[in-house]
Amino acid sequence: MNLAGNSFGEFFRITTFGESHGSLLGVVIDGLPSGLKISEKDLKNDLRLRKPGGKFVSKRKENDLPRIVSGTFNGKTTGMPLTVLFDNVDFDPLPYEELKYTPRPNHADLPAILKYGMDNFDYRGSGRFSGRETVGRVTAGTIAKKILALKNIFVASCLISLGNNEFGSADFDSCIKARKTETRTMQEWENEAENIIENAIKNGDSVGGVIQTIIKNVPPGLGEPVFRKLKAELAFATMGIPGSTFFEIGEGIKVSHSMGSEVMDSIEFKDKYVWNRNISGGIIGGLSTGMDIIFKVGFKPTGSIPRPYRTIDLRTNESKTIIIKGRHDPAIVIRAAIVVEAMAAIVILNHAMEMSLIPRVLGKEENEIIEKNFKIYGDS
Amino acid sequence: MNLAGNSFGEFFRITTFGESHGSLLGVVIDGLPSGLKISEKDLKNDLRLRKPGGKFVSKRKENDLPRIVSGTFNGKTTGMPLTVLFDNVDFDPLPYEELKYTPRPNHADLPAILKYGMDNFDYRGSGRFSGRETVGRVTAGTIAKKILALKNIFVASCLISLGNNEFGSADFDSCIKARKTETRTMQEWENEAENIIENAIKNGDSVGGVIQTIIKNVPPGLGEPVFRKLKAELAFATMGIPGSTFFEIGEGIKVSHSMGSEVMDSIEFKDKYVWNRNISGGIIGGLSTGMDIIFKVGFKPTGSIPRPYRTIDLRTNESKTIIIKGRHDPAIVIRAAIVVEAMAAIVILNHAMEMSLIPRVLGKEENEIIEKNFKIYGDS
Amino acid sequence: MNLAGNSFGEFFRITTFGESHGSLLGVVIDGLPSGLKISEKDLKNDLRLRKPGGKFVSKRKENDLPRIVSGTFNGKTTGMPLTVLFDNVDFDPLPYEELKYTPRPNHADLPAILKYGMDNFDYRGSGRFSGRETVGRVTAGTIAKKILALKNIFVASCLISLGNNEFGSADFDSCIKARKTETRTMQEWENEAENIIENAIKNGDSVGGVIQTIIKNVPPGLGEPVFRKLKAELAFATMGIPGSTFFEIGEGIKVSHSMGSEVMDSIEFKDKYVWNRNISGGIIGGLSTGMDIIFKVGFKPTGSIPRPYRTIDLRTNESKTIIIKGRHDPAIVIRAAIVVEAMAAIVILNHAMEMSLIPRVLGKEENEIIEKNFKIYGDS
Amino acid sequence: MNLAGNSFGEFFRITTFGESHGSLLGVVIDGLPSGLKISEKDLKNDLRLRKPGGKFVSKRKENDLPRIVSGTFNGKTTGMPLTVLFDNVDFDPLPYEELKYTPRPNHADLPAILKYGMDNFDYRGSGRFSGRETVGRVTAGTIAKKILALKNIFVASCLISLGNNEFGSADFDSCIKARKTETRTMQEWENEAENIIENAIKNGDSVGGVIQTIIKNVPPGLGEPVFRKLKAELAFATMGIPGSTFFEIGEGIKVSHSMGSEVMDSIEFKDKYVWNRNISGGIIGGLSTGMDIIFKVGFKPTGSIPRPYRTIDLRTNESKTIIIKGRHDPAIVIRAAIVVEAMAAIVILNHAMEMSLIPRVLGKEENEIIEKNFKIYGDS
Repeated sequence: MNLAGNSFGEFFRITTFGESHGSLLGVVIDGLPSGLKISEKDLKNDLRLRKPGGKFVSKRKENDLPRIVSGTFNGKTTGMPLTVLFDNVDFDPLPYEELKYTPRPNHADLPAILKYGMDNFDYRGSGRFSGRETVGRVTAGTIAKKILALKNIFVASCLISLGNNEFGSADFDSCIKARKTETRTMQEWENEAENIIENAIKNGDSVGGVIQTIIKNVPPGLGEPVFRKLKAELAFATMGIPGSTFFEIGEGIKVSHSMGSEVMDSIEFKDKYVWNRNISGGIIGGLSTGMDIIFKVGFKPTGSIPRPYRTIDLRTNESKTIIIKGRHDPAIVIRAAIVVEAMAAIVILNHAMEMSLIPRVLGKEENEIIEKNFKIYGDS
Repeated sequence: MNLAGNSFGEFFRITTFGESHGSLLGVVIDGLPSGLKISEKDLKNDLRLRKPGGKFVSKRKENDLPRIVSGTFNGKTTGMPLTVLFDNVDFDPLPYEELKYTPRPNHADLPAILKYGMDNFDYRGSGRFSGRETVGRVTAGTIAKKILALKNIFVASCLISLGNNEFGSADFDSCIKARKTETRTMQEWENEAENIIENAIKNGDSVGGVIQTIIKNVPPGLGEPVFRKLKAELAFATMGIPGSTFFEIGEGIKVSHSMGSEVMDSIEFKDKYVWNRNISGGIIGGLSTGMDIIFKVGFKPTGSIPRPYRTIDLRTNESKTIIIKGRHDPAIVIRAAIVVEAMAAIVILNHAMEMSLIPRVLGKEENEIIEKNFKIYGDS
Repeated sequence: MNLAGNSFGEFFRITTFGESHGSLLGVVIDGLPSGLKISEKDLKNDLRLRKPGGKFVSKRKENDLPRIVSGTFNGKTTGMPLTVLFDNVDFDPLPYEELKYTPRPNHADLPAILKYGMDNFDYRGSGRFSGRETVGRVTAGTIAKKILALKNIFVASCLISLGNNEFGSADFDSCIKARKTETRTMQEWENEAENIIENAIKNGDSVGGVIQTIIKNVPPGLGEPVFRKLKAELAFATMGIPGSTFFEIGEGIKVSHSMGSEVMDSIEFKDKYVWNRNISGGIIGGLSTGMDIIFKVGFKPTGSIPRPYRTIDLRTNESKTIIIKGRHDPAIVIRAAIVVEAMAAIVILNHAMEMSLIPRVLGKEENEIIEKNFKIYGDS
Repeated sequence: MNLAGNSFGEFFRITTFGESHGSLLGVVIDGLPSGLKISEKDLKNDLRLRKPGGKFVSKRKENDLPRIVSGTFNGKTTGMPLTVLFDNVDFDPLPYEELKYTPRPNHADLPAILKYGMDNFDYRGSGRFSGRETVGRVTAGTIAKKILALKNIFVASCLISLGNNEFGSADFDSCIKARKTETRTMQEWENEAENIIENAIKNGDSVGGVIQTIIKNVPPGLGEPVFRKLKAELAFATMGIPGSTFFEIGEGIKVSHSMGSEVMDSIEFKDKYVWNRNISGGIIGGLSTGMDIIFKVGFKPTGSIPRPYRTIDLRTNESKTIIIKGRHDPAIVIRAAIVVEAMAAIVILNHAMEMSLIPRVLGKEENEIIEKNFKIYGDS
């Protein structure tokens, strides 16, 4: 355990560092099997899904170019900590200067100042509270997904609601295909999603949303019975993403509003043991059942919108009305999808390694299986 | 970290052990400050709220009598691990014998068998997957609440919905008063709650529900910015309770379905910094804001109801229809309330200790404050 | 990590609790593979080697009868925390009453009082600072050795010096045979060892000593390159035993006083890779080499001897001369041997599990191998 | 816990990454109090003591210029992970190419190859097994010592033996002054130490040695009674340094060869409680006593010396005679001193933070005390 909490995981353990407007950000990934082929090119596909600068996301221009600076040798992992750095190129702390004494009510500003001291809070883009920190998580998630591909385990996260518009549930294939849309929704909802966001931009507003995640081919028995239930681990991992508001396993909200007779399931044997339906989201008693793991995570609308809000001036404690400048996302939930996917992959990989499912050394054969299976996420 | 996951917490760390139908259950609490007055009598008040044997709960008769067997000296903690044992008295494994080969679809049976091996699963009352394991958590929670009382920090959990009946939100005082009801609801909803449960019993059914928790007087700045966000820690702690289905911080579900303009808050200074409303549930950027911490946790209807269900016989993999016997809860959510309260108290205490808010040695004066404040939970 | 430090290990994780003169002591062992045959009878052989009441050890009469109260089903482990309790039967706090205000200079008394507070220190037999705490470690060690026996890995600790008498180095077989002596030395040194201890008893004195440990058949590659070097883990585990004074890997003391040319080794291939000699004690670069792991741990003479010593009276801070009563060991090092053996086994097992060398579920075949190999430690 | 073990500590937690002949090395320091003044200039003084390129050390030319790339704002810590990078400038992998198939017997080569796979071992300068990894530890140690200076706690490590020449014990002041010598010995032994090393260089040999460490002004009560004894933590920290061979607390080796009557101490009160002598090295029962903490760590002679050695060719398993090239240290123990000092500081700081001795936010006043006290280590 590290108390300050910039690390996550046991076997596959990541440590992130760096600030939104500092010189660079990075991630150290410890506990990798040796022999895994990995290149900077592998990392770009997922990074693109998190990158600012697009039509529906923040206008900040960052190329998010990964630099692998340790842990590989001749293009393969050595089993040593693999470090990836990202230089910040388009930081512009100016709009934040005036925020120094006027904390934004929907941001970490005030609690951070009260915790770390007025002069020690890096108010430039929220410093480390910024979503920019997640660039390292996404990178680690890509590598976790590569390793899981060896066992045919795949993770897909996509958007299933925006504001008060519920698009409905997505299956694994359409969730994967949503990687190709700019709003990270299923293709049939793409137009609607774009309209909602364009309207939000036009109105100087932002919009919340919900991400659904499906994890395929997880063998039964991952997770632990008591405190480390697999649902608890996924909840911890995803409620640790900036802006997250709720975690639901399977059809959990509906289930909690049901009678027992409505949610009774049955088990059959068809090559493997299967449940008649999957309202528990693939986890029972804290353990994976062998069914798809399905969960949802909500995200709030971006806190920064170009409208006046009331706060206090910390020098006088008097009230003051402020309008936030800077470049912000109309719907941060779009970029959150790949972060949820990454955190889910890291959790599953940790439990798979704990169960001895992943060899400690990967050879030619394993790398070939990985390369083949990993194509499911698209060309890199 | 212990990988098998029967421990929880960093400073105040609990380890639980024992099975539903074994000889005893217990909890080891490590990291206590020394000098805290504690007696078995202190523990009974909360244990009563979890105990089976009542009108609306399982008919199993357990007195849940706590025995403190280590860690105290002359009625006060020594700073050494405090261990509490609970003898099982009314175990009746008989009804479970026929379940050995026919796993119940809404229970951990099948994934546990697949993980640990057919012959190694203690199918008597689900062994350690049973809610009976939580007796130790509740006890640890009581002690955590005693220590938090030194800083005027209080935790209250109560029921705010049953099946598809939403009772609405409860404030702190009515949530505390719900300790006196048999359904753990606010007093004005007591009759309705009792009717719902009586109907469920009559129909051989069970019912799900939602627990709301309010934590008062948490100072600002508890929690950590990245992976150990306070909401993530609470989600981990509560999604690790058997039967939990979702975790929501503040008004998180509503917020995720909102526009940014609908959820913009403001800050004022009134003796301390306050937000105009508390839809974020007292946690922003992963840190406590100084407002009440509020979250909800859903629980599924008890999986065991006296109705036929389809499963397989593990010896042949052929389908079979079964009716579960044994003594079960019509609404496990009632007894889950005190478990949620316990886990929340443990999380907050760990973060308070990390911030050096709790003295490592408690003297006469601190014990007097604690005894006085602790009365809020009722006479023990 | 638990900060208060009553737990040890990652996969195979033990938590001990209980005081020297409390009602009972215990150990919770978390992370066991399921399906391992285990009985209370298995535990007695090692416990006998730690038990007080013999000719050369403390006269306290404890039967150290283990009671397994959780974690097994039909005589096999379930994968759930296995708890073993030991009732204290012959506690006699009387001799300690007068020590309350006059801390013994060679014991934890004064630092413990300064840390936990005068009134909170359980001065009866040092409470939890007593060597009595190790009863749980020995029990966990026995189980660890059973599991390691599956892989032909064996651990043997024995005495190689007493006071200023160096008996010389012992090989694995003679170290194992030392289990049959009352002084835990090689059989050819038995008389000499007995004489030294009898003299110490006669003179109202005590004597220090050194334990050597040999671990056979550890495969190469266990351990980690940086902070978790295998030698660092063994040093942590053994310097955490009461009374330990130094840790030496291989011929480390001699090596540090040598020139490089004197300690150059060579490697050959004879079925496996072997070094010409083993001055590094089977660990290079923090990793096991495949050679025997060999290390030494020193223990101080028992601090309590029936002679006057000077201390202060804590009520006045004035000097006072005291004679310690109570029942003490003339050479605690004799009983420490099995504790070193236990801690070494736990470290090796943790690293073996981390490397996926131990199946998570043990079946009939594995248990047969274990039962056969485990006989090396003698009949239980 | 991270299993792969590239992190150390709980509150003040460091993670190191990077290889001897990779592009850069680095350290992430997590858990810092906010508000601590820190600059790259502060770091150079200690780094100089570890740097290669001097008269008595490896000829590799590295400037070891630290770059702080995260975790500070306006020259002070923010409480976020502080990352320091070191670019490798003078790497020369050529001499290592021929070692690829002929592992050096006194190096990690062969166990590393067996653990990670032939093709995945970065044999260039031992990759991450190289002492070059410690550059990050030294940097973290400097910052730990700065924080400890607030409480007047100081750490000094120096050389007290070289080969079979024992220089005798050093007191704190002479140990600090040894920072000014090139051999890191007390000034009166400087000539002798230089002669020994010059002779070793002349003979194409290397020499082992012993480091003594003294920690001043540690308050009583640091450490934990059972597994996390302070001596166990120091042993773990220092036996995790490359080349370490033994750990001795106080006069531990002598004590283990003594009779109890020879090592009986007494306590007096002189402003604070003091022992008549300090053979236990300031730690009793695993807790600091308030006396100086004193321990010794041995280091082996550098494994690489320009003499022929026998090993096998991994392609054929046939024997082969090799002479090592590359630039190596005649006495690695000289450069190890500052690493021991760093690890000791990190251990003590972690326990001090656990005891709430260090404020979480440092202000002007604390920084002034720190700056003043920190001068004890010399001008930076």
